[in-house]
Amino acid sequence: MSILSSFKTLTKVDEALKLIDERVTYKVEGYEEIEISEAVNRICYEDIISPINVPPFTRAAMDGYAVKAEDTTSASIKNPIILKVIGCIDVGRTPEIELKPGCAIEISTGAPIPKGADAVIPYEETKRINGYIEVYSQVHPWKNVSLMGEDIKVGDIILKKGTIIKPWDIAVLVSVNILKVKVLRKPIIGVLSTGSEIIEPGGSIEEGKIWNSTKVMLKAMILEDYGVPLDLGVVEDDEDKICEKIMNALPKCDIIITTGGTSIGRSDKTVSAIRRIGGEIIFHGVSMRPGKPTAMAIVKGKPIVMLSGFPVAALTGYQNFVRRVMERICGIKFPPQPKIKARMDRRIASQLGSREYLRVKVLKKNGEYIAIPLRLTGSGLLSSITQATGIVVIPENVEGYEEGDIVEVTLLRGVDEY
Amino acid sequence: MSILSSFKTLTKVDEALKLIDERVTYKVEGYEEIEISEAVNRICYEDIISPINVPPFTRAAMDGYAVKAEDTTSASIKNPIILKVIGCIDVGRTPEIELKPGCAIEISTGAPIPKGADAVIPYEETKRINGYIEVYSQVHPWKNVSLMGEDIKVGDIILKKGTIIKPWDIAVLVSVNILKVKVLRKPIIGVLSTGSEIIEPGGSIEEGKIWNSTKVMLKAMILEDYGVPLDLGVVEDDEDKICEKIMNALPKCDIIITTGGTSIGRSDKTVSAIRRIGGEIIFHGVSMRPGKPTAMAIVKGKPIVMLSGFPVAALTGYQNFVRRVMERICGIKFPPQPKIKARMDRRIASQLGSREYLRVKVLKKNGEYIAIPLRLTGSGLLSSITQATGIVVIPENVEGYEEGDIVEVTLLRGVDEY
Repeated sequence: MSILSSFKTLTKVDEALKLIDERVTYKVEGYEEIEISEAVNRICYEDIISPINVPPFTRAAMDGYAVKAEDTTSASIKNPIILKVIGCIDVGRTPEIELKPGCAIEISTGAPIPKGADAVIPYEETKRINGYIEVYSQVHPWKNVSLMGEDIKVGDIILKKGTIIKPWDIAVLVSVNILKVKVLRKPIIGVLSTGSEIIEPGGSIEEGKIWNSTKVMLKAMILEDYGVPLDLGVVEDDEDKICEKIMNALPKCDIIITTGGTSIGRSDKTVSAIRRIGGEIIFHGVSMRPGKPTAMAIVKGKPIVMLSGFPVAALTGYQNFVRRVMERICGIKFPPQPKIKARMDRRIASQLGSREYLRVKVLKKNGEYIAIPLRLTGSGLLSSITQATGIVVIPENVEGYEEGDIVEVTLLRGVDEY
Repeated sequence: MSILSSFKTLTKVDEALKLIDERVTYKVEGYEEIEISEAVNRICYEDIISPINVPPFTRAAMDGYAVKAEDTTSASIKNPIILKVIGCIDVGRTPEIELKPGCAIEISTGAPIPKGADAVIPYEETKRINGYIEVYSQVHPWKNVSLMGEDIKVGDIILKKGTIIKPWDIAVLVSVNILKVKVLRKPIIGVLSTGSEIIEPGGSIEEGKIWNSTKVMLKAMILEDYGVPLDLGVVEDDEDKICEKIMNALPKCDIIITTGGTSIGRSDKTVSAIRRIGGEIIFHGVSMRPGKPTAMAIVKGKPIVMLSGFPVAALTGYQNFVRRVMERICGIKFPPQPKIKARMDRRIASQLGSREYLRVKVLKKNGEYIAIPLRLTGSGLLSSITQATGIVVIPENVEGYEEGDIVEVTLLRGVDEY
């Protein structure tokens, strides 16, 4: 009897993700109105519409001379046209002079085009001779000019509802004088540790107990993903107490993550607690390593993700499933994680039918990335996560990789050169 | 006469990066000692050494029965060995019983191995019959057992000096009872806008002026990269005033970024101001688009990066050069940005000799990514940044891409499926 069979059925990773997409229908509701400087990585609550034109006025796109395009007709190096310079417009000044035929006004990039002008001829195409310029080429109307509203028009949608606001989006908002935005409130994600052996960090420890390292990691990951972690503490392996904790936390949370208690051993109380409070288990046991005892349920419409208590397994479960649930309930798409191609440093075997998340150390040698596998087994192998530069995913239908195989590495850190 | 020739020499992007690596020798010094929950994305100031063993005690790695391995010799399904169950050890309990020959003690994953036992036989390999078990296979010594210190030993280096701390690293720190860490202080990056046309966001605007959208973007990007932005305000195009601002700010900053004033037009005061205060210009003008008028100097040993005042050009300059300077002065390597392969939706021409950063919108159609080029020219084209999903880099020696070409897109956001 293999360990795999201790779960009635193991769900494949892709099937589990499909089940999340189908079964998680809960949505985060409600908004905050905040200053744009606080809005990076927040989610637009509604379409953001421009109240103004950009550019707000027609302006020079190059340094040179504002001219009437028709005055430059057939100008060339052999047959330059001569224009009289009648003034100068600097950026930040409202032009008081008007351009007259046969004349030019010196102008800086960004300065408003004076009345009468319809093009800018750059310095490079001219030569200044006292109060005059020789023009060496013809310009067409509106050449080297940015027209009012050509970039953004009044009423244009700048950012669509559901967009994650990035620093460059903020530049655009400032440019149209929008200084506050409505953003979706952050999802609140409760984290409950289960396990009689778990004690909170700090203080002395008796034999048989272990410090709760997984919860602090999960809380940090939730913050990185712009959620609000809510610490629900630790509860021992007792079905009644787990039920009570979850029922109390549910109204305050958009998602609850539990850790521990989802293997099939003696301490497997969380799944039965969830069932007892009317929860619907949508999968229990995933054919992946680490993280096999991952489960997911819906209780009163809200998603509950049950992760392993081991940090490495909880990490895999979080990255695969909790992030997908966050995308669903917030209506967003996280950017993919950075990936590189690397050459395997040695052979690594994998279990057919299970998706393996192999931690590797990546080095760059002579311009090539080399992936050195760290220990594959033991989801509690902590040292492998501090040493790992990235993760190689070994698909279900692959028995492993040979030395020299080119694999894709999802990076957890930057890669040092050696 | 082409526009390129308005800079005496344009430096290639790779050459500019090499100059940064060679010439920026300044280092951020000093540390803070902080709680680990605050330490995500901070930089280790020193090697972090484990004060304890992990596991702290020898424990069961599976649910089953603690046994003496030699008692299982030659056990099989046909010839099971019978052991007497003399107790049970749960996680979180110190075992008070000792294993005697011919006996077994029921044990949960994570529970301490009792004295006398040296292996765990999983439930699946046994059958319980009243107070006895039938054992169906032989186990070797230390099978299904995690030995004290096998993961991390007292004195092991957990995180090396210069590592950027990630959430999973924190899990490891908790596991070895390290709750505070020394981290490098954050780099302080001053941002000074130059330009007589620039006014700070908010309030009404006269013709000829534009709101300062670039500074708020740069400050947000610095925060994203875990630096401390220091707002140095706006200064008009006046060499004396620029000198004064930079000299006053320099002692407080690790890097100064200026925007505007590095083109060759009438308003080009920053480069001359830097020269006047004894700064050494290490490049001025880069063969890239947008962002050509980017420059870099060293003043009193500290790096100054001069970016275009246009948001899109400043963004390109920041991502290329400011991040590299941050890596240098902090002794770190940022992870690369996420990239995908996409098929070009239409032909795009590019200028030979210049590296182009083409903003594209990416869609996923029938499982394939399609890159739709947004307007290439006009570094002030704001609407292209809110619409862009990513950037396609067109190298100096390439004249552009044809419709259907497969290109690499550096993602700025997640990609929607259509």
